[in-house]
Amino acid sequence: MQQRSKEAVEKLRKNGVTPCLATFRVGENKSDLSYEKGLLKSCQSLDIMCERKAFPEDVAQEELLRNIAQANEDPQIHGILVFRPLPAHIDQAQVENAVNPEKDVDGMTAASMAHAFTGGGPGFLPCTPQACMEILDYYQIDCKGKKAAVIGRSLVVGKPAAMMLVERNATVTICHSKTENLREEVRDADIVLAAVGRAGFFDGSYFSPGQIVLDVGIHVNAQGKLCGDVDQTGAEAVVEAITPVPGGVGSVTTSVLLEHVVKAACAAVRKSW
Amino acid sequence: MQQRSKEAVEKLRKNGVTPCLATFRVGENKSDLSYEKGLLKSCQSLDIMCERKAFPEDVAQEELLRNIAQANEDPQIHGILVFRPLPAHIDQAQVENAVNPEKDVDGMTAASMAHAFTGGGPGFLPCTPQACMEILDYYQIDCKGKKAAVIGRSLVVGKPAAMMLVERNATVTICHSKTENLREEVRDADIVLAAVGRAGFFDGSYFSPGQIVLDVGIHVNAQGKLCGDVDQTGAEAVVEAITPVPGGVGSVTTSVLLEHVVKAACAAVRKSW
Repeated sequence: MQQRSKEAVEKLRKNGVTPCLATFRVGENKSDLSYEKGLLKSCQSLDIMCERKAFPEDVAQEELLRNIAQANEDPQIHGILVFRPLPAHIDQAQVENAVNPEKDVDGMTAASMAHAFTGGGPGFLPCTPQACMEILDYYQIDCKGKKAAVIGRSLVVGKPAAMMLVERNATVTICHSKTENLREEVRDADIVLAAVGRAGFFDGSYFSPGQIVLDVGIHVNAQGKLCGDVDQTGAEAVVEAITPVPGGVGSVTTSVLLEHVVKAACAAVRKSW
Repeated sequence: MQQRSKEAVEKLRKNGVTPCLATFRVGENKSDLSYEKGLLKSCQSLDIMCERKAFPEDVAQEELLRNIAQANEDPQIHGILVFRPLPAHIDQAQVENAVNPEKDVDGMTAASMAHAFTGGGPGFLPCTPQACMEILDYYQIDCKGKKAAVIGRSLVVGKPAAMMLVERNATVTICHSKTENLREEVRDADIVLAAVGRAGFFDGSYFSPGQIVLDVGIHVNAQGKLCGDVDQTGAEAVVEAITPVPGGVGSVTTSVLLEHVVKAACAAVRKSW
């Protein structure tokens, strides 16, 4: 994916355009900082510009919105990413929908949501679930008729992931905190997409042989190390394949995001012609 | 629901406003005609105006779009409903999104889709899945932690129904034509929402005791009678409760639609003040 993006960036530069991503971070959340750091490095390796905008934890909503409006207008900026969740005093939906859908490379506006739900229309798909699909595709895992369990129902991961798996002809079960017999639901699935946001939540007892596990979680554990929603050692002993943390879904998510930035830059060039 | 709408209509009339629904039908599809006939009757009983617009099967897309644009502009029209599916020569998505989301009482525009997916924002929910939820609510069926099987993945019913059931804390499995062991998936559920669009597809062997079955199908069978996706006699012998066809989900769908028209009229009045 990065090779593909690199070639497109090369072509854009020959046309005098440097793709540029603007990131918006509020506060100093550890996983935001770690994601931001990874993004900057990946942008540099592909010659994509990265404008990091950071705001204090108590930033006024108006201040944030004003900065997003500026980025919407700025022809040098092609993609906008807002680290979420935002602090409680901010109306997150309003901030999300303030982003121009054509620059919404993280798939968080209503237009992008409609795209994720219907499979068509303008906007980009949310990066994390799309990264999961890229991984399935890369390893040629055919979802048709397979049972998939998506654990988590967020708009960032769970719900769009479920829609994408249905699109790939899987029979999809959406599980969450109110699910009874979660262990059974997970064990019965051929493909497990873990997105509960709790470090090491799924121990080996949740899994069965032959399963493909996508671990979407990213946490810093008590030892200061990055880990996912799944206890990797326990799961690895049972399942067919599992994405590692770090270096799994998160890394691919970055590549998806950068591909969106490059595509947004290409679209802007096409539009200006 | 109709009583509620009736009272709101009364209030609107005192303000000089008659709620009005415009329906768009292409061709003479039997289920469209039956739906249209029911709608007209229900509109009359609630003193809602119904402007039926019918077009020949081979109508040009431009002609259809021109008429929708007129209805969008017409302040006397509060709700617009397009009978679907449209014939193959028409770009259905384009026609759907031509409707002003504020008049999209059937929940088919991208804005309404985003609403169905995220549970927020402008637009109305699609009527049929909302009718299913109204039925569950009316009979005080708590979905929390229950297993729900949605069979069908259309944007009109299956996908939004799945989202609404997840919102109500059910563990939802989305099944479709590529699902293996469909019988088992259906049998294991506490709540079954049948939306496959095939007359009598589910015989008694698909069901188990204690189940709640919502039959979304509406078909004309070989005997010229209306029937659903479920073989009612076979299912009734097994399950706890099942919606009849006719007189079940379809009737409530009409009430939901009319409530949307009334709400759209109220919103238009508020906006004009």
